[in-house]
Amino acid sequence: MSDVLTQLGEVLEQRKGASPDSSYVSSLHAKGLNKILEKVGEEATETILAAKDAETSGDNKDVIYETADLWFHSLVALSHLGEKPQVVLDELARRFDLSGLEEKASRNKK
Amino acid sequence: MSDVLTQLGEVLEQRKGASPDSSYVSSLHAKGLNKILEKVGEEATETILAAKDAETSGDNKDVIYETADLWFHSLVALSHLGEKPQVVLDELARRFDLSGLEEKASRNKK
Amino acid sequence: MSDVLTQLGEVLEQRKGASPDSSYVSSLHAKGLNKILEKVGEEATETILAAKDAETSGDNKDVIYETADLWFHSLVALSHLGEKPQVVLDELARRFDLSGLEEKASRNKK
Amino acid sequence: MSDVLTQLGEVLEQRKGASPDSSYVSSLHAKGLNKILEKVGEEATETILAAKDAETSGDNKDVIYETADLWFHSLVALSHLGEKPQVVLDELARRFDLSGLEEKASRNKK
Repeated sequence: MSDVLTQLGEVLEQRKGASPDSSYVSSLHAKGLNKILEKVGEEATETILAAKDAETSGDNKDVIYETADLWFHSLVALSHLGEKPQVVLDELARRFDLSGLEEKASRNKK
Repeated sequence: MSDVLTQLGEVLEQRKGASPDSSYVSSLHAKGLNKILEKVGEEATETILAAKDAETSGDNKDVIYETADLWFHSLVALSHLGEKPQVVLDELARRFDLSGLEEKASRNKK
Repeated sequence: MSDVLTQLGEVLEQRKGASPDSSYVSSLHAKGLNKILEKVGEEATETILAAKDAETSGDNKDVIYETADLWFHSLVALSHLGEKPQVVLDELARRFDLSGLEEKASRNKK
Repeated sequence: MSDVLTQLGEVLEQRKGASPDSSYVSSLHAKGLNKILEKVGEEATETILAAKDAETSGDNKDVIYETADLWFHSLVALSHLGEKPQVVLDELARRFDLSGLEEKASRNKK
């Protein structure tokens, strides 16, 4: 499971530094944080609408797709601010006292 | 990295079936999908506000915290609809053609 | 002040029944409620971002523009559901015990 | 129709200057713009959810209620930034070329 977010973080890092017309992510960074956050808001709304429709239809395909879009754009926002996906997982681990990251056992948690 | 979301999925699964007054997650499920989705919307707004403040202050602590909250509540919504965290990672892997999940090489992707 | 929302309600009513390619509002109705609600979500996010920027810059032009967009799209949603702008004003009057609607003077307010 | 928003603007103005514990609006101003904008985001989500439920149930009561809440909190945000409800109506009139504001008849619209 881990490799997906690690690799996605590397892809985001590469595209952050690339030419604005080389990829969608590069163009978002060039447009600035507001445009990235507008996308976070849009994807949150689309996730909510897709979840309501899934509740009625029993088909979860769209809500999974929109949730992935929401996570993706929130990672672009964090990348814009200089952070990697790992920080979200660290925060979730800290909050839920998950033992998955043994290597973190001796770190200070905030 | 993987173990955090896998373990969080297990925690969410346990709490989904528990008594409404046994935990925050259990109480959310008892209140129903609308209440869970209200939280997704709230956390999206708080993520956006925290990102704007981080842009000004240079301190990313709150935006990391709020992004974790956003992911967490979107996972509660997916759990309510019968899905696990892995489906979001699979969708991200599919979209970005990430090779991290060798074990999925032979699976059908939707 | 009143005439603006009354007239806007009439414009919305006309465009609701018109050909999808005759106006932006007509095209939104043709695309359905989800598309209209996506716009409500987008405009809410843009209002929030513009308000944050106004706080910093002291220039309120964009936040006024985005708030008008938010109200407008929420009125398109209500129009899609068969309601006119007056219902929002009636609800605000009821809640704040405003005397604008004399006929409500003797009603119980919750 | 007009009197409702004019009067609401006056109520908001009074409460903006009052003691934080004297009313809900006063307490929002004391908590600051972020807290007000969190409420705008919350009410947008609740409007969207209520509209989806209205589409299924045919009952518009909740979506009207939530839309009024959304407009109300967006007016508190504008009040926090020093603006009155009239500015939203002026912007809507300008955009839709509504004749309510005769003084705008000769302006250029964008």
